[in-house]
Order: sequence, then C-alpha cells, then structure tokens
Amino acid sequence: MIKAGIVGGTGYTGVELLRLLAQHPEVELLTITSRGDAGMAVSEIFPSLRGAVNLVFSDPKDAPLEHCDVVFFATPNGIAMQQAGKLLQAGVRVIDLSADFRIKDITEWEKWYAMEHTSPNLVVEAVYGLPEVNRDLIRQARLIANPGCYPTATQLGFLPLIESGCVDLNTLVADAKSGVSGAGRKAEVSSLFSEAGDNFKAYGVSGHRHLPEIKQGLSKAANAPVWLTFVPHLTPLIRGIHATLYARIKRETDFQQLFEDRYADEAFVDILPPKSHPETRSVRASNTCRIAVHRPQGGDVLVVLSVIDNLVKGAAGQAVQNMNIMFNFNELLGLTQIPLLP
Amino acid sequence: MIKAGIVGGTGYTGVELLRLLAQHPEVELLTITSRGDAGMAVSEIFPSLRGAVNLVFSDPKDAPLEHCDVVFFATPNGIAMQQAGKLLQAGVRVIDLSADFRIKDITEWEKWYAMEHTSPNLVVEAVYGLPEVNRDLIRQARLIANPGCYPTATQLGFLPLIESGCVDLNTLVADAKSGVSGAGRKAEVSSLFSEAGDNFKAYGVSGHRHLPEIKQGLSKAANAPVWLTFVPHLTPLIRGIHATLYARIKRETDFQQLFEDRYADEAFVDILPPKSHPETRSVRASNTCRIAVHRPQGGDVLVVLSVIDNLVKGAAGQAVQNMNIMFNFNELLGLTQIPLLP
Amino acid sequence: MIKAGIVGGTGYTGVELLRLLAQHPEVELLTITSRGDAGMAVSEIFPSLRGAVNLVFSDPKDAPLEHCDVVFFATPNGIAMQQAGKLLQAGVRVIDLSADFRIKDITEWEKWYAMEHTSPNLVVEAVYGLPEVNRDLIRQARLIANPGCYPTATQLGFLPLIESGCVDLNTLVADAKSGVSGAGRKAEVSSLFSEAGDNFKAYGVSGHRHLPEIKQGLSKAANAPVWLTFVPHLTPLIRGIHATLYARIKRETDFQQLFEDRYADEAFVDILPPKSHPETRSVRASNTCRIAVHRPQGGDVLVVLSVIDNLVKGAAGQAVQNMNIMFNFNELLGLTQIPLLP
Amino acid sequence: MIKAGIVGGTGYTGVELLRLLAQHPEVELLTITSRGDAGMAVSEIFPSLRGAVNLVFSDPKDAPLEHCDVVFFATPNGIAMQQAGKLLQAGVRVIDLSADFRIKDITEWEKWYAMEHTSPNLVVEAVYGLPEVNRDLIRQARLIANPGCYPTATQLGFLPLIESGCVDLNTLVADAKSGVSGAGRKAEVSSLFSEAGDNFKAYGVSGHRHLPEIKQGLSKAANAPVWLTFVPHLTPLIRGIHATLYARIKRETDFQQLFEDRYADEAFVDILPPKSHPETRSVRASNTCRIAVHRPQGGDVLVVLSVIDNLVKGAAGQAVQNMNIMFNFNELLGLTQIPLLP
Repeated sequence: MIKAGIVGGTGYTGVELLRLLAQHPEVELLTITSRGDAGMAVSEIFPSLRGAVNLVFSDPKDAPLEHCDVVFFATPNGIAMQQAGKLLQAGVRVIDLSADFRIKDITEWEKWYAMEHTSPNLVVEAVYGLPEVNRDLIRQARLIANPGCYPTATQLGFLPLIESGCVDLNTLVADAKSGVSGAGRKAEVSSLFSEAGDNFKAYGVSGHRHLPEIKQGLSKAANAPVWLTFVPHLTPLIRGIHATLYARIKRETDFQQLFEDRYADEAFVDILPPKSHPETRSVRASNTCRIAVHRPQGGDVLVVLSVIDNLVKGAAGQAVQNMNIMFNFNELLGLTQIPLLP
Repeated sequence: MIKAGIVGGTGYTGVELLRLLAQHPEVELLTITSRGDAGMAVSEIFPSLRGAVNLVFSDPKDAPLEHCDVVFFATPNGIAMQQAGKLLQAGVRVIDLSADFRIKDITEWEKWYAMEHTSPNLVVEAVYGLPEVNRDLIRQARLIANPGCYPTATQLGFLPLIESGCVDLNTLVADAKSGVSGAGRKAEVSSLFSEAGDNFKAYGVSGHRHLPEIKQGLSKAANAPVWLTFVPHLTPLIRGIHATLYARIKRETDFQQLFEDRYADEAFVDILPPKSHPETRSVRASNTCRIAVHRPQGGDVLVVLSVIDNLVKGAAGQAVQNMNIMFNFNELLGLTQIPLLP
Repeated sequence: MIKAGIVGGTGYTGVELLRLLAQHPEVELLTITSRGDAGMAVSEIFPSLRGAVNLVFSDPKDAPLEHCDVVFFATPNGIAMQQAGKLLQAGVRVIDLSADFRIKDITEWEKWYAMEHTSPNLVVEAVYGLPEVNRDLIRQARLIANPGCYPTATQLGFLPLIESGCVDLNTLVADAKSGVSGAGRKAEVSSLFSEAGDNFKAYGVSGHRHLPEIKQGLSKAANAPVWLTFVPHLTPLIRGIHATLYARIKRETDFQQLFEDRYADEAFVDILPPKSHPETRSVRASNTCRIAVHRPQGGDVLVVLSVIDNLVKGAAGQAVQNMNIMFNFNELLGLTQIPLLP
Repeated sequence: MIKAGIVGGTGYTGVELLRLLAQHPEVELLTITSRGDAGMAVSEIFPSLRGAVNLVFSDPKDAPLEHCDVVFFATPNGIAMQQAGKLLQAGVRVIDLSADFRIKDITEWEKWYAMEHTSPNLVVEAVYGLPEVNRDLIRQARLIANPGCYPTATQLGFLPLIESGCVDLNTLVADAKSGVSGAGRKAEVSSLFSEAGDNFKAYGVSGHRHLPEIKQGLSKAANAPVWLTFVPHLTPLIRGIHATLYARIKRETDFQQLFEDRYADEAFVDILPPKSHPETRSVRASNTCRIAVHRPQGGDVLVVLSVIDNLVKGAAGQAVQNMNIMFNFNELLGLTQIPLLP
C-alpha cells in the first residue's frame, strides 16, 4: 500500500481520480486539498462518493502532502509548477495532470499558456506520461507530466504511421471532437447545458494549447518536424473524445497489421477489426483507447479513428496507469472497469 | 465459483448483466443466448465488452443452460414462464428479470400483460426479489421474480412509511420519471433520439403495468389495501429513475429517523441527510438507491425522493444481489462499483 | 407601429423577446440595454439574430427608454422595481418579466426574494399578466407583472377545477419539471452541461419562490385559501415545462368538458382529447399551453398534464401576448410560430 | 396561391415541409399522403401541428396529386423515380427531396443506392436544386433534385475555393457531423436515444452515398475531377450539420473576401467575420447556411466551417426555396423564421 494525495480535488479530474483511487487495492488515499471547499466532506460535494470516500477537503497549507508516496495535481495550469519542487525534495513522486510540465520548449509554453514558467528545470526532468511511448522512463521518473486528452487520442492514433515513416509529415490533419467535461467543472456560460446542449461547434481553430503538445510528441516520434492542422470541436456529450485523423500515404504497407503490431503488448490500446467505427461510449468510464484504420476508396489518404474517455485515458486513468508503472504495480491495477454501455 | 447463464442477452438488461457478471469474482459466465444473433460474438454487438467477455451468442436450443447453477432471464415478458420450469427441474436456480412471476394474482397479471400465463404454479413458488423485504425467502428460493425498475424505487421510498402505519393508505401518489433505457433496446419510433431527446412527457397515466406490482408490494407491507396514483414519465436521460412520492401523515414521528432505522443494515439503500435532493447520476452505474425525506412547509404531506439506476438496482444489479444472497456470497460481491459522475 | 425597448437583453428571456419582437409586424425595436455588454452588437453575442436584429446593446443610462411606448424588463429580480416608476411617469407602459410585481403581499415577497421592496405602491397597481384570467385588466394596465414559468403552467392546469369548485383545495399537488434554460443564462456550476445533462433531480422541495405566486393565483380563483405541495425538478432538456397536477375530486362533473369550455375562446390554450399525453416539444418555440385531463382507474384523483415552453408562454411570448392586449392588437400577432418538431 | 401536395408526410422532412408550407403566404396545402397512416389526422401524429394543419393523411392512390401545382416527394429513395413521370405529364412540377434524381451517372447511382433506376430520362431532365449554383435552371425546371444535407453544407463551403481555382483538387477533406434526425424517423436501434445519446462515432468511412453527389457538384464547379475524402459522423444533437472542410492553397488571394463576394447576393448564405466559429444552433430551424474561413497558423491549409439545419437548408427549407424560385415568388417567402436559440 502506498499513500496518495490529491491537490485540487473539486474538478472533474479530481473526482475521477477519487473514483479510481478509492477502488485501487494498493492505494491509501491520505489527503485531498481544496482551497475553496476546505473543511467540507468530499461526499457532500460529490454524493456519488458517499460510502466510498470518507475524506474531508483540507486546506492546501495543512495537508500532509509530504507524507505521501505520490501526489497528483488536478489543479488549473500554473499551480503544480510552483508546488511540485518542494514535494520532490521531500521524496514524494508527483504526477501533474495539468499542462505545467508537458512542453519542453519553455518559450513555446509561455506563449500558449500566457504566464511565466517558474520551474524550467523541472520541465527538463519531467517525463511525458504516455506509457505507450515512455514506459521505461516513467518507471524511473520522480515527476510525470500527464498528457492532455486531445494529445493522448491524437498521438496514439498517429504514432504507428509516423514511427514507421509511412506517411507525409507535412499534411497531417486531426479533426477532434470532445465532450463538454473537457472544459472542466468551471462556471462558464459556454459550458451551460442550454449553450452546449443540442449544439455543435468548432473552437480554437486558429490555435489550441494542445497543438504544440501534439506536435512535440509526433516530431519526436518522427525525429523530424511535422505540420499538423488541428481543429477541436465541442460536442454535446459529457465524456469522450473522438479524433478523426487524416494522413497521406508515402510508403505502402499493411496498415491494419502495422497498428496491431505496434500495440500488441499494450493493455489499454485496442485495435478494432477493419471497417470498424469506434464509438466514444465503447470506452466510457474505462482507460481504453480504441482505434480503427480506414483507407477510403483505396486512395492515398488514411483515416484513423481514435476514441478515449477524456477523463480516464485522457486524464485520471492515465495518471493511475503512470502511478502503477512508477511503483511497479501491475499496470492494470485499479483500471479494469468495464465501459458503461448504454 | 458458480456457473451462470443468460437467456436473451442483447437487450440493455442483458448487456448490464454481462458487465456485472464478467467482473464478479465467484461467477463463471458459461453461456448466453440470443435467437436473432446466435453465432455472433458478444463483443461484436457490444464493443464495450471487448476483452472482458469472450462468449459467442448461442442459439437457445443449443445452450448448456442446464449445466448452470443459475440462469438469468433477460427476455421479453412471456418467455421465462415457458422455460423456467424445465431448468428448475434440472436443479438450476432461476432469476427472471422480466415480469412473468412478479404478480401473484394471475388474473391481474393476464389483464395487464395481455397473455395467458402458462405456469401459474411457478408464480406461487416464485419469491419477489426485493432483498430489503424478502432476504430470508430469497436465500432459500429456487425461482426469483426480479422486481421492476419503477417498483423498486417506489417501494423502497414508501416502505418505511407504510410498514410503520404513519401515512394514509388511500392518497398515495408516485410521480416517477425514467430514463429512456427503461424502454429497452427495441427499435421503436418513440424511443428515437430525435423523439425522446430534448422532450419530456408522461405516459400510461390511465394505467401502467408496474402499478399492480407496486400495489401488491405496498399492500403486503401495510397488510391492507392501498390506493396509489402512479404517473410514469419519460425523461431525456439514458439511465436513471427518480420517484417523487407523496403521502399524507396520519401519525407523527421522526420521519428522518424512521428511514434511517429501517435501512440501517441495508448496504444498497442510502438515506441522505435532511434537505437533500438525490440526483439520478449519484447512483449511475451502481446498485444503490438514495432516498431523501422532506416535509414542505411543515404541512401534513411528506415528499420522499428516491433514485436508482434503472438498469442496476432496477434490473441487473438487483438480480446479482439476489444471486449473491441465494448462493451465500457476500451481498456486495461484484456490486461495489462507484457511481460514474459526471 | 409602436416603439419597444428591452432592459437587460443578454439573458434567455431577452434573446427570446428579440426573436419574437423582431418578427412582430407592429413593433419597432428601439433600444436594448445591457450593463455588461454595452457597445457590442446584439448579433455578436447571439449570431442566431444576424440579419434579423441590427441593434447595439446600450448602456442603461444612455438608452432612450422614455421614448418607447412599451419597455420590457428582462432583468434579474430587484431591478424593475427601481426603474419602472420613472418610465411610467414618462407615459411608458411597462411589462416586467422578473418577479418584482407578482406577489401582492409585500412581506411575503420580501421573505422569498430576500430583499426590501422599493416600490410597494407599484405592486398595488401592477396587473398580473395571465391573459386567461386578467384580460380586461391587462388591456387597461400601465404595468404588467408577467407570470413565472411554473406558475403559468400550473395555474392554467388547475384553474378550471378550482374556479368550478370541483376539487379539494387542501390536497393539491404540483409535480413540475423544467428544462435547464429556466435557470437563466448565468454561469453556475449546477447548470453546466456535465452537471445537468443525463441527470434528473428535484430541488427546492422545502420551498420555491414560485409557490407563493401559484398559491396567490389559485386562492384568488377559489376565493379561499388553498394548500399546495409544489415540487420542482430539473430535467435535461433546454426548453419546456411539464406540470403534473394532482387534485382530489369533491364534486363530479364532466372534467374533459369543463376544461374545453373554460378555454374555448383562448387561442393559446389547447385542450387535448381524452387519454392524451402532451409532450413538451409539441409546444417548443410557441406560445401554446397544451393540457390533458386524466382520471386514472376511475378513482377520485384527477391528473392534469400541462406543458408550455418556459421561454415563450412561460416568459417572452406571454409578455408579447400582454403587449398585444395592451395596445389593442390582434392577440395572436407575432405569436403564430408553429412549434419546432423534432 | 398555388396548390401543393406532399408524398410521404410522416418522416422528418415531411413534418418540416408541413411546418414551412403551413405558414407560406402563397401556398395552399392540398393533400399529403402516407401509406401507413392513411385516414389519420396529421395533427394526431404530430400534435405540434394542431391548429396549423387540418389535413388527414391520404392513401397515395386517392390523393389528388395531379391537381397540385407542385408536389414534394418526402419519400424513401426509389419512390419518386416511379411516380414523378406521371405527375410531370399532368403538368405538375415536382421537387424530390429523396436522392432519386441527384446523380447524373446512372451506373454510379445504381451502385450507391443498390437498385435499378427506373427513369434515367428524368435524371437527364432534373435540375440539381442548389439555388446558389443553379438558380436560373431551377426557375425553368419541371423537376428538381433537392440536394442532400451533407452535400449542401459541403458544397457551399467548398464552392468559392474551387470555382476560383485557389486550392488543390486532389487533397480535399470534408469531416462532417450530423444530428440524429438526419437518419430519419425510422425505427432503428442505432438511432435510439440510449444508443445515439451521449455518444459520438464516425460511420460509412469506406463510402457514403453523399460522396458521389458532392464530387459531382465540386467537379462541375472545377470543370475537372476532384478527389475528396469524406467522413460523416453521428453526433448527439437533433438537428444540425457541421462540415469542417480542409483544402490546400494553390494560389494566394484574400480568402475572406472571396467568400463574401461569392455569396454577396445570397440571402441564405451568411459569411461570418474572420476568426468566427459558427454553431449549429445559430441556424436551428432556419434556412441559413453560416460559413467561417480560417487559415490556422498562416499555413497552407484552409479550414472552412459550414453549418446548416439538416432539415431546413439541408432538406425542406431548400425545397421551399426552390419552389419560390420556380413560381417566381420572392425567394425568402415563408423562410424568414429566426433561428431558435437556445
């Protein structure tokens, strides 16, 4: 049993971490913090956790975070970069679900996140927590930058093509659709039921923060720069990301086989049979990414469909997967929930 | 480990049974039948079960149901009454999720279900599977009539008041709201997304099949006839039942305490603190019923709010709970999923 | 042509007023105010109005409200009571869509709305704008208190029974369900898509502000006090209210005929044939209230189903209907939109 | 006043035609047919039309279709091609909302629609009813092939780029998302609320019937063959299509201006200001197509966002627009509804 703490537990990634960690056989939830709701029982804010989580939200100042083996940051951007260093010095391992340590290029990060980075040295140390790429580094890491939701779905869908050098790196398109929980549990007009319901729209077409993160990952896999057109959309579902990826074939191969081979040993990536169309609900509440590969009309464009639950494989589930790797647990521990359908 | 079979596995209660039983530590899923989809892999119809359920749907004629310890009927009404007898004779215990054995009065049943009952003798034997009322009988039973979804939410909400004789039996009102999955996985225009979505309506106001079932249970608890006005509504959510119950006080007591005492030992009934409003999502995907008791403006009307997931505590979860009791397993086995929120 | 102004145009009742008034053949929209968005084009905030409304939001201080023939307040509670007096003195007629002038008992109003009322004298003068009750008074009125959404659906459903003295006044129950737009276009966590979507809950069971408004109307119709249990629920649809009303019969009559006679001359109340179940979408975007009357199992409880679009007959549409009456226009003018289905 | 008839009035395009035609000042609705519901009042199936449409569904054999000036076919594919000829001979003008006359290449049509075409000669005569392209031909036409929903949104978004020769014709991508009403009012499991709700998926990636229709239109505009990758998706909204279009720039120009110029005289195409993201709800219930043009990061890929209401500009509204043109009415007649928001 290890001791775990959560900083910032009142958002959707926080409550999802609670759901997963409360059932994890090797984890004792030691503390959870909330600036705004300190002193209130977790189950009062999230009645779904009545009987499962008996913690009270602690003020960040009083929380025994340094007594934890691992601390998760489920905070807005800009918090973890200020607090992670002290915890690392105390010997605590840190998994940051925010974007603070994801982008290696500090100038680029500061441009997209519109603040000064206070811990560039930790960015150097941080391991990008996509286990399907960095498993060995994750095992040794003290500090994990847990990937964003769009970047997880998009990279897992593009990686086999890019690593194998089969597709043109200059004409990639990622048309991605997210459920509304991706915007977080924040009181914003644009996320209201009467605004986001029965409605569909693109947003951030001129530039979205997840674009540099995706490009960084794909460029590293290609060992060359890539050009990606990335268009995110808001779709009226609660959970789920569907990435529709387009790539032009440069070199022929058996693409279905390529994907199956690439992920043969990955427990959380499921390559569907040819002609499949993965549904977001087929991964709802689970840590699985399902992928299908198409080549419409035998042309030179590949279409890859990649779905995840943005709060699980796109956030809290991947964080727990990273924790499992870091502490040498079975990678599936606490992550075997069967997707909820319907 | 016991061997379990499912008859009729392509509906929502079927796939929900699969989700629960596939994770149950004491159950081996031996067989699942489907007339229409025999020969097809379960995971082809329900990709959410890829990697979790490897069965192929069997033709009912070929399925080794008699080798099972327990068989669940997740069939339309009228099937279990024809097939249960033979299984019982073979020593198999049967849990029927349809309505075939729920109503003791055969004439009443035939009126509401518009067919002749072929096994009245089994109706006599069948135990109504509401554990909070019949736990001891369930333990001994060969044949369980698993309660309907509305009847579960409504009875659990009314029972403390009626058993204690505190309320008038002639003026009960149950205003109940169900998610669309309650109508099953049947191709019907009224259940289409574009019909049921962004829409709210009552139905069956002149009479609904669950009315006699509820009246039977409440009358038995009261040891006297009850009059109930029952109005079901269709609401645009996938899972969930919310029963709003109205009863006139006949005798004063501490009603909050009454509910807490009645369900003190029940793992799956959660009485919320005073002034609470349970949400359907607070029980989504779980076997819990959450209840709150109100007395608006100190008048003589009690308002009880009772929520369940219609596919879990209202169907498959309660069936597994009954199975746990019948086979002397811990009643919570396989039913400890934390509700999914958001 | 009359000149109309709107105070507070960025909420849902504001944009709905714009939709209706922009198409009204006898109305020129002169000005619309917004404290927060002054200087911004209406169509920038509401692109649905591009090409239909060319106004720019004015600062309330600069808006030529006194040059209008009629001014609508689509403001939070507490604003109209401060500003209406000055406009009335300038000869402008005022229709207030907020709650400031709805409750005649000032003490009661102050209790429910938690503020001091600044214009009790205007409350005396204000006419409650339910045309089906007060048409003649509305015609003469300078100041209209436009009814709330729940009160409109509930009163129209109860009125025939209460005016005729057919039902018991002490055991009325109104179980009402509202779409999320009823909570307004305010950034609140409880109205987020991921909170209110795929979820159903009651709220305000111990007391809701619309309760005294409904009781006032029903008591006046009965010429006697009434006791009403009123339970509002939040349901995952954007527009629509469904009120399910329960009343005990005191005196027999032909209840279907009673309703048809009561509303025979009402253009916006539609009594459905016996055994009908009105859907909220059958009135979506229209000013119609559809009502069905049931007597389940021939008992002594009547069940009345009443649906409206909360933003039209429950707010902006009724306001335009009141305006039509006040200015001697055909009552249907600008209100003949056919409901949107699906 | 002209006399209009509708063949096949119980689907979503049928009820939408009824909504629009019932309010059209120059149209008398003479007859509407339904094989399955003949003899039933229209308002019984669609209570939203109570008071607006008093017709009874006629059996197709008895309907006075030949007495109409115009007949709309809102039928499944394969019906209009059998019945249009006789009506044309009788001097009736025909607008077919199905796909029977859309594809000029009969072999291609037969491949995608899997039936033999019975009236190839009428295909030759039929005018493709996209007014923004074929207005003059439509004016003279006896027979209109009303465009599909995806083809309308996609062609209007691509046309300025293709007509002007600015983009590469071999690398076009259309990533399109449709509301569920696009699947029609048919009892199909895949369109159930509990299947399509809270879910997102692509479908028909290997080939969709609207692909040849779009390619035909774009090739004609280019006067050269085009290669298009077209991926349709099902999204949980009732109405609305959002097409996200990708094209590679071949020749520089002011693309915003290009679009504004192309549609300067088009009443139903609205080019949004730079950096806009049109929402599907901004055109809900209206005949407008709203388009925004983006060039992310100044690269060589243009992203065009195009939204319509699939049942209006994508079906019934465009049919009425075509009728207006054919009968020399003002093109906006009966089509000035303001979009419904929220």
